[in-house]
Amino acid sequence: MTIEQSPITNLPAFAKAMAGKQSTNHLFLRAALGETTERPPVWLMRQAGRILPQYRALRQRFPDFKAFVKTPEAAAEATLQPVDELGVDAAIVFSDILVIPEAMGLDYEMIEAKGPRFPKTIENQQDVDRLRSGVEAATALQYVYDALQISKSALAGRVPLIGFAGAPWTILAYMVEGSGSKTFSKARRLLYTNPGLSHELLQKITDTTIAYLRNQVAAGADLLQLFDSWAGELPPAHYRAFAVPYLRQICEALPQVPKTVFAKGAWFALEDLAELPCQVIGLDWNIAPAFAKEKTGGAKVLQGNLDPCTLYADTKTIEKETVAMLRAFGGHHIANLGHGVYPDTPLDGVRAFVNTVKNS
Amino acid sequence: MTIEQSPITNLPAFAKAMAGKQSTNHLFLRAALGETTERPPVWLMRQAGRILPQYRALRQRFPDFKAFVKTPEAAAEATLQPVDELGVDAAIVFSDILVIPEAMGLDYEMIEAKGPRFPKTIENQQDVDRLRSGVEAATALQYVYDALQISKSALAGRVPLIGFAGAPWTILAYMVEGSGSKTFSKARRLLYTNPGLSHELLQKITDTTIAYLRNQVAAGADLLQLFDSWAGELPPAHYRAFAVPYLRQICEALPQVPKTVFAKGAWFALEDLAELPCQVIGLDWNIAPAFAKEKTGGAKVLQGNLDPCTLYADTKTIEKETVAMLRAFGGHHIANLGHGVYPDTPLDGVRAFVNTVKNS
Repeated sequence: MTIEQSPITNLPAFAKAMAGKQSTNHLFLRAALGETTERPPVWLMRQAGRILPQYRALRQRFPDFKAFVKTPEAAAEATLQPVDELGVDAAIVFSDILVIPEAMGLDYEMIEAKGPRFPKTIENQQDVDRLRSGVEAATALQYVYDALQISKSALAGRVPLIGFAGAPWTILAYMVEGSGSKTFSKARRLLYTNPGLSHELLQKITDTTIAYLRNQVAAGADLLQLFDSWAGELPPAHYRAFAVPYLRQICEALPQVPKTVFAKGAWFALEDLAELPCQVIGLDWNIAPAFAKEKTGGAKVLQGNLDPCTLYADTKTIEKETVAMLRAFGGHHIANLGHGVYPDTPLDGVRAFVNTVKNS
Repeated sequence: MTIEQSPITNLPAFAKAMAGKQSTNHLFLRAALGETTERPPVWLMRQAGRILPQYRALRQRFPDFKAFVKTPEAAAEATLQPVDELGVDAAIVFSDILVIPEAMGLDYEMIEAKGPRFPKTIENQQDVDRLRSGVEAATALQYVYDALQISKSALAGRVPLIGFAGAPWTILAYMVEGSGSKTFSKARRLLYTNPGLSHELLQKITDTTIAYLRNQVAAGADLLQLFDSWAGELPPAHYRAFAVPYLRQICEALPQVPKTVFAKGAWFALEDLAELPCQVIGLDWNIAPAFAKEKTGGAKVLQGNLDPCTLYADTKTIEKETVAMLRAFGGHHIANLGHGVYPDTPLDGVRAFVNTVKNS
């Protein structure tokens, strides 16, 4: 598929700084840096798990999900499985965004089929004061750095390795709410009732995340993605006040590698996100490519955004929808779904998606 | 507060047809019909319940939520409570959107603090064929019509009475998914794997909803609101294919009263919604008033959209945020929250919101 591409405007300086590093020769990183590539690279969020029989077999060995995440060899194995089995163009380290609250001193349980639960939540100043943060907290996450190092070495340069963290607002949401939620009204209430404490907590999370991601880069991460899973719960003014400044701090603190910000549901903040010193913006499946291109003004590479439910359809439909998406983005694009792959997605559907992009 | 208002363009004919009917003298209906009013009317979604001590006392008498909904005298009492206690400008009949699946033959349980659960869900052609629909199904909902009649009579013209139903896509989502869901991937899968069956089911729901809402108007509803709670789960192309045409059928079938469409999360469909033969578009708290005005081209009255979490704040903040919202809409506006009021909202917060609008 041949697509006319206009150049990305704000990337050359960054790309130049990256040039010569071996990893930038990979399709995925070249695309992330705004280069015109022979085809869009493709990977899936949550690709490591859920859909591969090999992953399910590995998962069986760990009745406790957290024990799985904390075993670097197993996490590295899960990291590589989709590269081996699906032929995706990037690996993402197998881990969880909630390792950060735990490292800060707020433990959680992962309840099967229900999600995370925090026995103790953040309610007041004392709770925030008690939290570890920054470099000190990040040292507790050696198992993630180990998983990255083992993965990087096992990948042997085949594809780049993505590191990641939750965005500060999303991490605050879990720490205050104590679990997933339909409304996150408890977490959102704190922003109204105690904005000062909210900012203190966001800063502690940010400091920890920066130290954590620096260590991830040292351990071999070639690109970093920030997941702001609950971005769409905030009104635009709150997203600007309580989310964007912390995303900016993190992006500015990590000039060594390209960065992707995926703020699910934050269609209303695309203009703000376009001004962040990151290279890639992730999009959910609600956002039409033309809308995203208009709002980001061609300043970013866009990642996404096929409806994950497309992969339940027959191969022909998947091919048709994937090609339509590729054409709608028209280059400067990293192909992905608009959300993590759903656990019951047929493997054949995932293969049809990946192969359609690779043959485009 | 004085606000310059440009006239709503497509409403005069409808307003003229309504003119002379006694109920159109009410502030709420005049605003819904696009007239320039002395101040915006105000009401809250889910205002009947959750926050009023009087409601909680009434609710205590019914251990089963569905028994409450099915007792017209109790439902009417809940309908009037917010008018008496908060002084809102409209009453909305106390009921539930899931009465429709039940009337069609798909029973559900309401599980305390968890939400609805359907023991049997819709999976195949036989399941759809078995469903009752249209006038036949709507006769099963006499208890709603009774609640409307009792409410209307008890209101004695103080404020207009709103009737409502779920939008067809949202009702399908529950019937296929069987419960609330983080992703509604089961329901959304059906749209990809069996679009024909999806349309058949949507048509049966639509036929039932039309008969149901006609009966609501006969029982005294002055305005009808359609709740598309899971609109935001669909990609734009699916919303256009599987949601908008059925909303249109319903709006066209009910020319007698003004209609409001509230499609939560469907910011991407505002241009389509603006073309529906309804008078009011409800907005969630993600949508900036300026964005909604631009996308609807001044063709609709807009309803919403204060973040419900604002009401957790102190009175000063609530007043400030409410006034900012009123100014941002600048007329042709019905004040409301961007979502149903949350159950733990302080009553003082609700009063501060309502009174700020009433004193504007």
